[in-house]
Parts: sequence; structure tokens; C-alpha cells
Amino acid sequence: ATTFRASEHQHMRYNPLQDEWVLVSAHRMKRPWQGQVEPPLLKTVARHDPHNPLCPGATRANGEVNPFYDGTFLFDNDFPALQPDAPNPGPSDHPLFQAEAARGVCKVMCFHPWSDVTLPLMSVPEIRAVVDAWASVTEELGARYPWVQIFENKGAMMGCSNPHPHCQVWASSFLPDIAQREERSQRAYQSQHGEPLLMEYGHQELLRKERLVLTSEHWLVLVPFWAVWPFQTLLLPRRHVQRLPELTPAERDDLASIMKKLLTKYDNLFETSFPYSMGWHGAPTGSEAGANWDHWQLHAHYYPPLLRSATVRKFMVGYEMLAQAQRDLTPEQAAERLRTLPEVHYRLGQK
Amino acid sequence: ATTFRASEHQHMRYNPLQDEWVLVSAHRMKRPWQGQVEPPLLKTVARHDPHNPLCPGATRANGEVNPFYDGTFLFDNDFPALQPDAPNPGPSDHPLFQAEAARGVCKVMCFHPWSDVTLPLMSVPEIRAVVDAWASVTEELGARYPWVQIFENKGAMMGCSNPHPHCQVWASSFLPDIAQREERSQRAYQSQHGEPLLMEYGHQELLRKERLVLTSEHWLVLVPFWAVWPFQTLLLPRRHVQRLPELTPAERDDLASIMKKLLTKYDNLFETSFPYSMGWHGAPTGSEAGANWDHWQLHAHYYPPLLRSATVRKFMVGYEMLAQAQRDLTPEQAAERLRTLPEVHYRLGQK
Ligand SMILES: O=P(O)(O)O[C@H]1O[C@H](CO)[C@@H](O)[C@H](O)[C@H]1O
Ligand SMILES: O=P(O)(O)O[C@H]1O[C@H](CO)[C@@H](O)[C@H](O)[C@H]1O
Repeated sequence: ATTFRASEHQHMRYNPLQDEWVLVSAHRMKRPWQGQVEPPLLKTVARHDPHNPLCPGATRANGEVNPFYDGTFLFDNDFPALQPDAPNPGPSDHPLFQAEAARGVCKVMCFHPWSDVTLPLMSVPEIRAVVDAWASVTEELGARYPWVQIFENKGAMMGCSNPHPHCQVWASSFLPDIAQREERSQRAYQSQHGEPLLMEYGHQELLRKERLVLTSEHWLVLVPFWAVWPFQTLLLPRRHVQRLPELTPAERDDLASIMKKLLTKYDNLFETSFPYSMGWHGAPTGSEAGANWDHWQLHAHYYPPLLRSATVRKFMVGYEMLAQAQRDLTPEQAAERLRTLPEVHYRLGQK
Repeated sequence: ATTFRASEHQHMRYNPLQDEWVLVSAHRMKRPWQGQVEPPLLKTVARHDPHNPLCPGATRANGEVNPFYDGTFLFDNDFPALQPDAPNPGPSDHPLFQAEAARGVCKVMCFHPWSDVTLPLMSVPEIRAVVDAWASVTEELGARYPWVQIFENKGAMMGCSNPHPHCQVWASSFLPDIAQREERSQRAYQSQHGEPLLMEYGHQELLRKERLVLTSEHWLVLVPFWAVWPFQTLLLPRRHVQRLPELTPAERDDLASIMKKLLTKYDNLFETSFPYSMGWHGAPTGSEAGANWDHWQLHAHYYPPLLRSATVRKFMVGYEMLAQAQRDLTPEQAAERLRTLPEVHYRLGQK
């Protein structure tokens, strides 16, 4: 019988955090690509555009004028998917027609006053200010809501409609689907094995090494064993930390520095401003924040769509939408490529 | 207190088939769109291109020459994600690192010898031939594999790399993730309520009417109460049918006709060749086919990405990838728009 080799033989892997399987078919990278190529990125973005509602001093859709901020800037999303006061849809009349109330707030956070920078092009102290702003907004909205979802859609390919560096924060009166899955899995793992799932996972990856991308005093970046997106990564603190506000000053500085390195590697991979969606998951907040959430470990997921080059992405379509996630290179191959890339940004190195 | 109106007040809806929630925020359609606009579609496709590996008489990547087929044509995918003989990855050494064997076959099915047609531009008898080919391939591969996933990725936006009208068939040695979810939900519903989930659901939608798009003697098309994609639809037989091969000749003819109407409406919505991924789900096959699968009802899902126009799509990104699916118009609004569209194709009407 042939010996199994992950890079040659398709197989399935289990994601114990979100309870789903992925089909890994690495031999598929050999096929030619004749499909859609993404439009090339707009090369130049003006540093300041008075008509861009995210810029300092600009007027927003609701008539408000932004301050001339010089660090991060947080404000209410002018077109929020969640509003604080939506009425309740009322009881369902049939088990197949269930609706429930959803309340919340949506905020936008600008990372920097300039439109022509991205996180990897910002300085470590500037990124540290973003980390502090993430911690504060989690604290502020977490006082009222059980889930505070911080996420960044970067790049037009990820539906980002504004080039100014920013993220979004959607706080909700409910635990969203994926939060519920992670809650269930982490709780079950803790009760079965007596330790948090992601603490043991990080520990194992430090021993196994083949999926590590970056390590620092307080953090790890790795391509998870069950990654779905080609260059997906998981960012984990080494210490058991439940939520962003708990991070110490030293952990925050170190986070800023490892994020800069990771995002620089991402940009260097295809020499482009690497698109992705990323977001933070931590223990639930709100009125239940005082309950026992020891099974939770804070983490960030990075989901970048590019597969082969700056313009050829992975499409998660037919089979993936109807049956199961599928990937075309192994997580170990992806980690190896990211690991060997320089930590100096290709645009800064050229200077 | 304000009266709840689904088209104005965000709320959540439950998908009992796939066990997940969607956030419905219809007021969000009011926001302006400044994000990515898709490249316009290639206007002209040659009817026959000898270099296109899907065309009659063309040579494929593996050197084989296609016959001069004049109906549908089924062949092995030259770059399959699933192969019949991959070795087993062996036992896992840790509960967080679980891998399993995956075996299967991937086929491609051409719908028509011409590259410049799509299903809605084909005649009802030509579409009926596709239905028959779907039933045969399910029977053929279902003899050996527990799951036969038929799916069509239509349009470059859905990762389709070839304009020639075709679909794919991936048969696997395992029940994929989404099949497992549907299996669990349908089994639980049947045991609790004594009838198949989708039979009762179709029945309810016929009574409620507001989400119906098309009805015929043997079929229903509706926008499900829990739809995620803007113009997502569910295609259901009226009779309790577990798998495609069981369809009677009358049901097959009627299916061809209702598919032509649905896809014509889709094209008419934004006067474009409407992109989507679609696929069939039926009871598991293979060696367990003889077991009791009464809780299963055959159905097809259509997942089209467009939201506002032929070039502005819905992005399922940050919040959707990290937290929960979110939609920007109600399923009832989508159904109403589709229902009122003509059943004559805009390109044929102009003639
Ligand atoms: O085999 P194709 O059509 O080239 O590939 C397309 O469909 C597959 C199945 O959904 C996906 O995995 C690919 O990402 C997509 O590009
Ligand atoms: O609010 P934005 O950035 O315009 O919108 C973007 O992110 C949202 C949250 O992931 C998505 O629902 C939208 O489809 C996407 O275009």
C-alpha cells in the first residue's frame, strides 16, 4: 500500500473549535487556472480626501463632522445592521418559522488619520494604540452586550468599501452562530480534558512546529491544522487570557509587534496589499461576564482569500457552499511559505 | 411600543434544515455602495472553440479527445479534488489533530454542445436531458459512494473557469459537513413531528404564499424563510421523493420547465447572465441506501451572490465569516421581486 503523504493524498481534517470538517486536496494546486482574475488594486490612495467620510475633518452621511483626530477614531456606523431598539418579532407560530429579537450597535474604528497606510505600514506604537482601542471598545460595549465582534475587512475583494484603514465593531444582544459553536466546543473540551482547548492546542503546535509562522514572548501565530482558507492563520496569546481588556501592557506591545510582522509577511507573499477578513473572539461579556468562562481562550482568526497570486483567489463556491470546505494546499505548506518570508515590508525594503 | 415590521426592524431567523441563524437587517439596503464593482461580463462567447476542453471534439488536459456529443456529456474531471484510491492518514495521536481518509471521484457534465448557451436559453427538452443525466449519474456513483454532490458554479463571480454550460459531480466516501447537518435536522424533525421537515415546510409555504416564487403541478420554488443570499431559492418536489432517480417522467418534464422559468427570472432580475452556485441534496446512497431515509426530501439550493445590480454583489465577509450570516433585504421582499418578473428571457423577448 502507498504511504500516506498529506501533500499528495486528499484527506479530511477536523476543526475541533468550530466543529466542522475540511477536505484537503493538495494535489489540486497542479491544475491550470483559467477563471476570474481580480481587478488590479488601485495603486494610489490620497493621504487625505475631504470627501472620504472616514478622514479627519470630513462630513459623514448623517451630517456629523469628524474631529481632526490624530490616532484612532471610533464612531457610530451610519448604516448599522444592528440598532439598539428594534422591536421583538413576537412568538413563532410554527417550529419551522422561528424569528427572534436582535439588538445591538455597530461602530467603525479608524486606525490612523491617513488613508494611504495599512496596519503593516504603521509603526508598532501606532498599532499598539489600535490594540488599546480594541480593548476599550470591548470593555465599553461588553458592559451592555454579551458579544462584541471586532472585525476588519481589508481590501475591495473582501467587500471593504473604503480604503481608509479601519475596522468595525458589532455588539449584539445574542451570541452569534460561530460564537455559539466555539462556546460549545471549548466548554465540552474543558469538561472532558480539564484544560482549555486552545491552551492545549497552542502548546501542541509549539511542540510540533510545522504549522508555526511566528512566535514571540507572549504570542503565537500558526496556520491551524484545520485551516480552510489557503493562508488562514490563528493568533493566540501564550498566557490564558479570556478577553482583550485583560492583556497586560507588555502583551499589548508584543501583540502590536507580532501583528506588524504577520501582516508584513502577508503583504510580501504576493507583493500586494494582502486582503483578508480578521476578527477577535473572546469570552462572552454583558450581564453574564461574571460566570465561569475559564474554557475560553482569546484568539484572532485571519481569513485571507488569495491562493495563487495577487489576483487569483480561492473561490468558496459550489462544493464548499453545498457540501464541505475544501482547500488546495496543506496547512503545513502554507505555514512553511509564510515562515520563510522576510519580516521587512517589500515597499519599505525598496526604499 | 413600535410594531414589528420585518422589512424595517432587524431580527434573527432560524434555519431548521442546516441548524443556523441569519441576521436580517433590511433597513441596510438604504446605505450607499462605494465598494467593489464586478468586472462586466464578457459579452460574447464563441459557440464552438476547439481549444476549450469542454467543447465537442476538443482535446483535454490528459490528451483525451471529446466525442462530437450532441446532448449532455459526462467525463472525469482532469484535476479531481477526490481520487478513488487515496491512502488512509492513519490513526490520530491527539484529539485536536484528527484526520480521516477521503475517497471519491469528480466528474464534469456538459449540458449542451454549444458554449454560448446557458440553461435558461436551452429548450425544455434539452433541460430534461440534463435532469435525466443528473438522475443517471446519481444512480451510477450512488452505487459505490454514500454521497453524490451535483453542483453548478455559474459565472466567473462564482469561480467558474469555463463559460461552456456545465456542472460538476463529486461523489465521496463520506457524508460532507452540510449533508451531515441536513441529515441530523431532518432525522430529528421526523422523529419529533412524524413527518419529513421539508414536506411540512413546503406545505406551510403553499399556505403562507408570501415567499413563493413559482409553483407547478409537481414542484415549488420559494425563497426560504431563513435565506442567507439575497435571492437564494429552494426548489422542492411536491411529492415525497428521496433522490433524483425516483422522479417520474412527468416530474422530470415539469422540473425542466420550472427550472427554465426560475433561471429566466434570475437572468431578467438584473438583465444579465445571473451567477449562482446551485446543487442537489437527496438521501444518502451507497451501501446504506437501503436503510430508512424517509425523513429525507430531495431538494436543490440556489445561492446567487448578486444584491443590487449585475455588478454589485453581497459580500459574505467579516461579520459573516467571524460571527453570523447577515442579509440586507427580507426573504419576502426577494420573493416578491422574483415573482413579478416576466417568464420570458430578456434576450429572447427582444428578438
Ligand atoms: O473545479 P473548478 O470549477 O475549477 O473550481 C471551482 O469549484 C470548486 C468546487 O466548488 C472550488 O473548490 C474551486 O475553488 C472553484 O474555483
Ligand atoms: O459595512 P460594510 O463594510 O460596507 O460592509 C461589508 O461588511 C459587512 C460585515 O461583514 C458585510 O455585511 C457587507 O456585505 C460588506 O460589504
